Amino acid sequence: MKNFQPRIASIGIVLLVGVMLILTACSNQNDTAGDQTSEPSNFIILFADDLGYGDLGVYGHPTIRTPNLDQMAHEGLKWTNFYVGASVCTPSRAALLTGRLPVRSGMASPVNRVLFPDSRNGLPADEITLAEQMKKAGYATACIGKWHLGHREQFLPTNNGFDYYFGIPYSNDMDNVADFSSVGGYMGFWKSALRKDFHNFNVPLMRNTEIIERPADQHTITRRYTEESIRFIKENKDQKFFLYLAYNLPHVPLFASAEFENTSPRGLYGDVVEEIDHSVGQILATLRETGLDESTLVVFTSDNGPWLIMDDEGGSAGLLREGKGSTWEGGMREPCIFWAPGSIKPGIVTGIGSTMDLYTTFSRLAGVPVPDDRVVDGIDLSPALFEGKESPRNEMFYYRGDRLFAVRVGDYKAHFITRGGYSPAAIEHDPPLLFNLSEDPSEKYDIAADYPEIIEMIEEVVRQHNEGLVRGPDMLKDRGEP
Amino acid sequence: MKNFQPRIASIGIVLLVGVMLILTACSNQNDTAGDQTSEPSNFIILFADDLGYGDLGVYGHPTIRTPNLDQMAHEGLKWTNFYVGASVCTPSRAALLTGRLPVRSGMASPVNRVLFPDSRNGLPADEITLAEQMKKAGYATACIGKWHLGHREQFLPTNNGFDYYFGIPYSNDMDNVADFSSVGGYMGFWKSALRKDFHNFNVPLMRNTEIIERPADQHTITRRYTEESIRFIKENKDQKFFLYLAYNLPHVPLFASAEFENTSPRGLYGDVVEEIDHSVGQILATLRETGLDESTLVVFTSDNGPWLIMDDEGGSAGLLREGKGSTWEGGMREPCIFWAPGSIKPGIVTGIGSTMDLYTTFSRLAGVPVPDDRVVDGIDLSPALFEGKESPRNEMFYYRGDRLFAVRVGDYKAHFITRGGYSPAAIEHDPPLLFNLSEDPSEKYDIAADYPEIIEMIEEVVRQHNEGLVRGPDMLKDRGEP
Repeated sequence: MKNFQPRIASIGIVLLVGVMLILTACSNQNDTAGDQTSEPSNFIILFADDLGYGDLGVYGHPTIRTPNLDQMAHEGLKWTNFYVGASVCTPSRAALLTGRLPVRSGMASPVNRVLFPDSRNGLPADEITLAEQMKKAGYATACIGKWHLGHREQFLPTNNGFDYYFGIPYSNDMDNVADFSSVGGYMGFWKSALRKDFHNFNVPLMRNTEIIERPADQHTITRRYTEESIRFIKENKDQKFFLYLAYNLPHVPLFASAEFENTSPRGLYGDVVEEIDHSVGQILATLRETGLDESTLVVFTSDNGPWLIMDDEGGSAGLLREGKGSTWEGGMREPCIFWAPGSIKPGIVTGIGSTMDLYTTFSRLAGVPVPDDRVVDGIDLSPALFEGKESPRNEMFYYRGDRLFAVRVGDYKAHFITRGGYSPAAIEHDPPLLFNLSEDPSEKYDIAADYPEIIEMIEEVVRQHNEGLVRGPDMLKDRGEP
Repeated sequence: MKNFQPRIASIGIVLLVGVMLILTACSNQNDTAGDQTSEPSNFIILFADDLGYGDLGVYGHPTIRTPNLDQMAHEGLKWTNFYVGASVCTPSRAALLTGRLPVRSGMASPVNRVLFPDSRNGLPADEITLAEQMKKAGYATACIGKWHLGHREQFLPTNNGFDYYFGIPYSNDMDNVADFSSVGGYMGFWKSALRKDFHNFNVPLMRNTEIIERPADQHTITRRYTEESIRFIKENKDQKFFLYLAYNLPHVPLFASAEFENTSPRGLYGDVVEEIDHSVGQILATLRETGLDESTLVVFTSDNGPWLIMDDEGGSAGLLREGKGSTWEGGMREPCIFWAPGSIKPGIVTGIGSTMDLYTTFSRLAGVPVPDDRVVDGIDLSPALFEGKESPRNEMFYYRGDRLFAVRVGDYKAHFITRGGYSPAAIEHDPPLLFNLSEDPSEKYDIAADYPEIIEMIEEVVRQHNEGLVRGPDMLKDRGEP
């Protein structure tokens, strides 16, 4: 027996080492598998235009039917405190694609709120867009839909990191060629039948840098954006890709396809949103069909709040105050759904997020460092997305043009200046108005008098913010031929 | 070969008949199985108090977390145009339990809007309650929670068809014994710390007809209602039952248990709603555990809109206008979820429904004819619940006290009189204000001038309604010792 013991011990050691090797291998395999499935490698941003916080079924609208977005929210993460970088189109899109507050890139101006068809400039060439970040990691990139960051050739998507562009270069209500004088001026036009004819909006539809249709047929435009997007996904299913699908609706003028027109109980605005919902359903179905649902992160949100002055052709911010153009919550808080069945568990996030965070989050996921030669405002939301942790964002800066109107820190928002989205007068507040947004999402109850220490804390945050602020040259002010 | 043909034919006929018999048997079996599972036989009404249209996650609230109700909605039918019979407690509950507009039963008055602790009367004995209907079919019945249809013995639940009662007989803010004079009167009281002590509300807790606790400990009351309800369900799992669980919260004063206090980002109101959500989760879990989920229909809704004058301790009507006490949508349209996994397919219903319809729907399902000696306003919603058809309801009458303020027919609502929930002045409108509620749920855009024919149509509906109207003697007006 004695002689046998060393042999048994040897056999034991060999077995033990073998088991350990196998366990290590399994463990490595698990880690590898974990890496492969735990974080997505493809990115899709679905970006609506002027959609309000309250305009989806899952965000409480009673008559707009959005079964695809409702299901997407049920399978994904529904964010209830998600912000855009500005309350109007151009600076909001600049924030999304640069990860920076528009005031830093010069895409915020005291003169013009957005770019117009006669604007000379666009997003500065030295801004590094999210698409340019993705190109560093070899991604296929496409921008389908509304751009609105400069329509002259050097500013177009294909000069900003996108391999491919199909869409309109600015808002769908621009190049308005109708005769306003016969219908009582600009606002009269929007009450007249003239708004229902897309020929009155001489907006170009472009492929890469070429105009392929003018005026763009806006009845079929959402369907065509969807088709282009599905084609891009299928063509790139074997490589990493980034798709930015920026619907140009439900921004007025509203146009639906024959399939959707006169179908929603909400009227034309509902037809248009329901057609976008249908498009989202088709995009997600394509991902499932191609097996890309496990490796793709899809984010749905909108560029700013509802255009309330358009009455029933504008949307609803639900219980939030005011809408597009304002720094009240209705102007800058948006529906937002993150969907990635392979890596994101369903739930609701009540913490703060921002479109600028997509820049930093996607960059980190793609393995591309964010630029270190400038301030990037985006924060990597991965802990909230993949680990069930709280959102790492605790602050939001609400600019109107180049002026800081309000700041949120945690639950508290201080308004230093308030102004309705389209009202003429700005009102300065000293002390600022103070609201607890978690308890009072409708910004009804000013509690400034009760919390001077919170106001002091926010004012300190503002001081630090201002110290680090380098304002880019105003890219929106120059218009007309040079 | 010739001789064989008849035999082959015979064999063929025998086989054919056999197959047909099998198919018929299968078909019958399916029908039987269909009958057994297609309609529920037990009924539970979960009735919140002063919960607003916008106060659940699935109805758009950003910071009140209601995972159980969200899931219930996802598994069931979420109604987005569901109404109560009145915008304050007593008449709303009368409508629910009688299936009749309160003006018919005398539970609507020009003098008092609700019953008070010194009120002499209650629901008339000759009204046939939903519980009395269920008793005709041998159901076990229980009322757990707030009653508010008369606190003197003859008016209590046990005299109105309920085998068992556990709860408070009127609102949780009544029997207010605090000294208002020291805190600036009644509204001052609601801003003072006195509101946070349940001893200032000397509300009795009753079991059947006995007071078992006074003042009721309101911190633990939701938990105790839940426990009583679960016990009732388990005790009656082998027979048909009807449970009416009427939470007395989030009506102010707000009280949460230690488990929920200071947990919701929405503050105390959120704590209270989240505790109710937890209770709903426990009720549904009990049904699943006992296997009763296949045979039980659960309906969650609330008695009226949010009590807006209570500021952040009142709820939110979301995008709807005004709240409790008013005939604007925020006063009378409520969250409503029908859940019956064995028979109801998930979905969203944008058609009209009413709490009064529960009376007629449950009666039909239980095989009990609705009374034919009086007008019953309830409509059997079965086609919308079980067959995926449109709701059969097309009209809603909005009474304030005993006066008809507004009428909805289809998409259109005409306001003949408007008044804020707690504002002093009623304003009469001739022509009435007219809103398209499907297109304009926030009642912002009066379209009366554009649709005189719709107003005429609604006025004709009002004439017919008035012709058939027999007003019950006012049961709310008499107060004090006789």
